[in-house]
Amino acid sequence: MSVDIWEQGLKTPVPVAEYLFRRLHEVGIRSVHGVPGDFNLVALDYILKAGLRWVGSVNELNAAYAADGYARTKGISALVTTFGVGELSAINGVAGAFSEHVPVVHVVGCPSTISQRNGMLLHHTLGNGDFNVFANMSSQISCDVAKLNKPSEIAGQIDHALRECWIRSRPVYIMLPTDMAEKKIEGARLDTPIDLTEPPNEAEREDYVVDVVLKYLHAAKSPVILVDACAIRHRVLSEVHDLLEKTQLPVFVTPMGKGAINESHANYGGVYAGTGSQPDVAERVESADLVLSIGALKSDFNTAGFSYRTSQLNTIDFHSDHCTVRYSEYPGVAMKGVLRKVVERVDLGKLSRAPSPDVKNEVARNRDSSEIITQAFFWPRIGEYLKENDIVVTETGTSNFGIWETKFPRGVTGITQILWGSIGWSVGAAQGAALAAKDAGADRRTVLFVGDGSFQLTAQEVSTMLRHNLKITVFLIYNEGFTIERFIHGMEAEYNNISRWQYTEVPTVFGGSDAQVRKFVVKTKDELEKLLTDGEFIEAGGLQFVELWMPKEDAPRALKITAEVAARNNAKMSE
Amino acid sequence: MSVDIWEQGLKTPVPVAEYLFRRLHEVGIRSVHGVPGDFNLVALDYILKAGLRWVGSVNELNAAYAADGYARTKGISALVTTFGVGELSAINGVAGAFSEHVPVVHVVGCPSTISQRNGMLLHHTLGNGDFNVFANMSSQISCDVAKLNKPSEIAGQIDHALRECWIRSRPVYIMLPTDMAEKKIEGARLDTPIDLTEPPNEAEREDYVVDVVLKYLHAAKSPVILVDACAIRHRVLSEVHDLLEKTQLPVFVTPMGKGAINESHANYGGVYAGTGSQPDVAERVESADLVLSIGALKSDFNTAGFSYRTSQLNTIDFHSDHCTVRYSEYPGVAMKGVLRKVVERVDLGKLSRAPSPDVKNEVARNRDSSEIITQAFFWPRIGEYLKENDIVVTETGTSNFGIWETKFPRGVTGITQILWGSIGWSVGAAQGAALAAKDAGADRRTVLFVGDGSFQLTAQEVSTMLRHNLKITVFLIYNEGFTIERFIHGMEAEYNNISRWQYTEVPTVFGGSDAQVRKFVVKTKDELEKLLTDGEFIEAGGLQFVELWMPKEDAPRALKITAEVAARNNAKMSE
Repeated sequence: MSVDIWEQGLKTPVPVAEYLFRRLHEVGIRSVHGVPGDFNLVALDYILKAGLRWVGSVNELNAAYAADGYARTKGISALVTTFGVGELSAINGVAGAFSEHVPVVHVVGCPSTISQRNGMLLHHTLGNGDFNVFANMSSQISCDVAKLNKPSEIAGQIDHALRECWIRSRPVYIMLPTDMAEKKIEGARLDTPIDLTEPPNEAEREDYVVDVVLKYLHAAKSPVILVDACAIRHRVLSEVHDLLEKTQLPVFVTPMGKGAINESHANYGGVYAGTGSQPDVAERVESADLVLSIGALKSDFNTAGFSYRTSQLNTIDFHSDHCTVRYSEYPGVAMKGVLRKVVERVDLGKLSRAPSPDVKNEVARNRDSSEIITQAFFWPRIGEYLKENDIVVTETGTSNFGIWETKFPRGVTGITQILWGSIGWSVGAAQGAALAAKDAGADRRTVLFVGDGSFQLTAQEVSTMLRHNLKITVFLIYNEGFTIERFIHGMEAEYNNISRWQYTEVPTVFGGSDAQVRKFVVKTKDELEKLLTDGEFIEAGGLQFVELWMPKEDAPRALKITAEVAARNNAKMSE
Repeated sequence: MSVDIWEQGLKTPVPVAEYLFRRLHEVGIRSVHGVPGDFNLVALDYILKAGLRWVGSVNELNAAYAADGYARTKGISALVTTFGVGELSAINGVAGAFSEHVPVVHVVGCPSTISQRNGMLLHHTLGNGDFNVFANMSSQISCDVAKLNKPSEIAGQIDHALRECWIRSRPVYIMLPTDMAEKKIEGARLDTPIDLTEPPNEAEREDYVVDVVLKYLHAAKSPVILVDACAIRHRVLSEVHDLLEKTQLPVFVTPMGKGAINESHANYGGVYAGTGSQPDVAERVESADLVLSIGALKSDFNTAGFSYRTSQLNTIDFHSDHCTVRYSEYPGVAMKGVLRKVVERVDLGKLSRAPSPDVKNEVARNRDSSEIITQAFFWPRIGEYLKENDIVVTETGTSNFGIWETKFPRGVTGITQILWGSIGWSVGAAQGAALAAKDAGADRRTVLFVGDGSFQLTAQEVSTMLRHNLKITVFLIYNEGFTIERFIHGMEAEYNNISRWQYTEVPTVFGGSDAQVRKFVVKTKDELEKLLTDGEFIEAGGLQFVELWMPKEDAPRALKITAEVAARNNAKMSE
C-alpha cells in the first residue's frame, strides 16, 4: 500500500511520535528521561507537544536509574535513548528495573528502515550490518520488544507494549526508526485509553484458593502477614491495607517491602530478614504458625543471606501470577483477586491474634558518650527526622541495610534496589523520584542516603536535580570508600579505597547557585542534632547537600551479618 | 577428579587469578581498569602480585572507555567488572571496542559455580536463576567467550582468549566464578609465552595476490596509498611505512586512519573523506588511476556521508582477513604478508609517481579580524601547538571533525571513535591513553579535545586522571551543548541544551590540589595565543584544564557536510 492510500484511510492521522508520547501521557507519565542523539532527534520534537517535559539527563545510565526512581514513585516511566551507544549505556539501569519489577518504557531512536534493510555502515553500529543485535540484548531484560517498522502495525504495537509494561510491571523496549517517527497512523485510537486492568482470575479456581487460604487462616493460632517487594511492584497495597485493617493481624515487612505498610500502625511489627532481624521480630515471625507472605522475593540480601527460619508448611505465598499454600501450588491464580476475597470473606470470629513487637526508633539505646556518628546511632535518629510522606532513597551498601533500623512515619515511600544492587543507582533514582513527586503536584521531601564510593559513579546527576529545581536532601556518607566490600573482602585493600572529593562543592560546580543549594559538613553527633532540628533544613526548600562523616570500618548490624554470608558463599568450594 | 588429585598432578600449582593476571602482564598490560564488586574481590588480590597496577576507576563505563584508550596506545588492555551490574554498565564501552577493532580483555567476576548450578536468587541477578544471560549479551560484542568453570580447562581457555583478543583485535569476555579464583592450575605453562603471531597466508595463494597487485601497481600512472583504521588496529603500520619509504608514493589517510602516517613526510597528502576533503585532496585521490586502500572502514562519518568518488575498478583493498583487487576477491589472504612481499618485490623502475598536495596548518588563511575563536581557526592553530609523539584524543562532535584540519607532527598518536561515536568516550579514553604512555615509560603529552555536552557524561574520569598523576591537557570546548546534534536537527531545540557547569572547578572538586592542576579560561584569539606559547603550558607537567569558548552555532566544515547527509538519511522515506 502506498503512503498516500494508507494515510487517506485514516480518520485522524497523527505522527507516530505524537501517538507514542500522547499514550505515555495517558498512562501517567509527565517527564521523559533521556539523552538526545541523531537517531531520536525528530521524535523529541513531539515530547513538548504531548504535554511532556524533557528531562535532559546528563548520561543514559543516570537517565535509566532516574526512570526507575520515577516509576517507583509515579507508577510508570519513560526513557529515550539513541541506537547502540545510548541504549547500551542505559542497559544496566533497565536490567535493574527488570530484575526489580519496575515498569519503564525504553524508546530507542534507531536508523531508518531503509538504512537497516540496506545494512549500511552507519555510526553507532558494530560495522557488521546487524541492526538487531542491541534489540536482542534488550529482549533479555524486557517483557515486550516492539520494532515499529510498519505504519499499519505501529499503533497496536505501542498499545500492546504499554499494557505489558504496566501489567507485568517490567521494562518494554520500543525501537523507533527515524523514517517512522513522522509517519501517520490512526489517531482516533487515542480516544480509547489503553486497557490497563489485570485479567481476572478464573472465578471457580480463585474461590477454591480463597477457601484453602481461609481454612488455614481460621485455624491458625498466631498468624502474621509478611509484605515483600512484589506487593508494592504488583500493586496490591490497597488489598494488603484492607486486610490489615480488617483482621488487625501483626504485619511485618522485608527489606524490599519496607515502606509498603504504615509503620505507625499499632500492628506493625518491624523488618523481618531472618538472622538480620531484631531478635523480637525474628522470634515473633518464626514462631508464627502461619505466615501470609505477600509478594515475596527471597534474594540473598533481602533475607540476610537466606537466613529465614520459617517453614513452608506454615506459609501461604501470594504472587502476581500464582499462589502457593504450604506445598500446594496454584499457577495462574494472581494474588490481587485472592486477597480481595480473603478480605471480604474472612471470619473475624474465627481469627486468633497474638501481639506484634513494639517498633520504635531506638535512638537512646544506640547513643554513646562519643561524638562519633555511628551507623547504629544514625539510622534510628533519621527515623525521628523523617516526616509523613517523605520519599526515602537508600543506596546499596551501608544505607540500604542501615534503613532497616529506621521506623518510617506514615506515608513514607521507601526506594531501594536490594536485588539488583547496582552502586550509583540511588543518585539517579532520587532525581527521578523527586521529579515524579513534583509532576504529581505533591509537596514531598526526597531524602537520599548514599555512600561516597557509590556517589562517585553517578555524581553528575546532581546537575539534573538542579536543572529541575528539585527538593532533595542528600546525605553523603563520607566513610572513605566501599565499606560494604570491605566487610565482604579486603578491609584494608587498596581497591576498596576511593579518591577524596570536595563533596559539598559538587552541586556548586554542577551549576547550583548559593540561592539554590545549601551545603553542610557534619562530623559529630552535636552537629547532626543541630542540623536535624534546624527549621529551614527540615523545610527543605531546594537542594541540600550534607557531607556526613562516619567511621570507615563501621557498618550496620544487618550488613555485617549479610556480608559474612556472602563471603562464605563466594568462597565455598565445590569439592 | 577430586581437588587433591588434580592439584597433586600439577608441576607448579598457581591460583587461577594469578595465572590470568600474569598472562595479562606477559602480553603487555601494566594497569588494569575496573571497579571492585563482591564477585571479583578475591581475584583483585592477585593484581598487585602479578606486577600490575589497579586503576580504581570511578565507574565501569568510564573504565571501559579508558581500557579502549589504553589498548589503542599500548596494544591491548584489561578491564575487570562484577557480574550483572558492573559488566552491563561497561557494555557500551566494550561494544565500542568491538566496533572499532580494539583488543580489550574483559574479566567479569561472577557467582560461584555452585551458586550458578543451584540457580540461587543472588543480588546482581535478574532473579530468574539465569546466570548466562549477561554472557550471552556480551558474546555479541566479543570475539571469544571463556567461562572458567573447570580447573582442568582454565589455562587453555585463558591462553586461547588472549590470543584471539590480540589476533582478531577485538574484545574477549572472561567469566571468573568466585570459587575458581583461587583454584590451582598448571603454572608451568607460564614458562611458554602465548603465541601471538598471526597465522601466515598460504604461500602460493599469497604470491598470486602479490603478483596481481604488482601488475596493477606497475601499470598505474598516478597511484596513491590511502590508509584507514584497520591498518592501525591490525598492526600493519610498519609494512605501510616501508611501502611508503620504498615507493615514495603519495599517501593519504582517512579520518579514522589519522595518525597512522608521519604527516611531516614529504609525500603525505592529507585527509581524504570524499566531499569532506580539502578540494586538492579530493582532486588528487579521485583522479588517481589506482588507490591502494589499506584497512578501509567506510562508515558514514569516516567518509563524510558515503561521499567517496573513487571507483572499485581503480582500487585494491587490503584487509586483515582478505584482499580485493578491483572486483576479484581473495578471502583468507591477510594484508600483512601481502604488503610485506609487495614492498620486497615492487619494481621501482616500473613505478609512476605523481606529486601529492602540500599539507600545512592553514592558520593564516583562517584568521579573521574578530577575537572570536572559530572552529576554522582553532584546528590548524592546534597543529602548530602539537609536539612530536603527542597523543591526541578527540571526542565525537566538533572535535573529531575539526581535527581533520590539523596537521600532526611526527609520531603523534591520533585517537578517536568515529564509527561507534559514543559521546563521553574521549574523557575515559584520554585517561587510559595517558596511563598507557606512563606505563610504557614514555614522556608523552596527552591532549584531549572534548565538547561540554560530551564532557558532562563522563566528567568524573578527571578524578582518575588525578589519582594517577597523569599528564593530560584538556581543551573543554565550551559552546553550550550538543553542536553536532544541532547541525543534524534542532538548532534551537531545548533538548540540545545542557546545564552550565563551572568547568574549570571540576578538577578541584574531584580532588586536584592547586599544585596538581592548572586551570585556564580562554575566550579570545589573543588569550589562546598567549596560552599556546606559554612555556609551562607547553611543558604540561600535570593536569591542565582549559575552558575554551567557541560559538554555539559554529562547526568544522566537514561536520556541516556530514551532518547534512545524516539528516537526509534519517528523514528519507521508504515510499
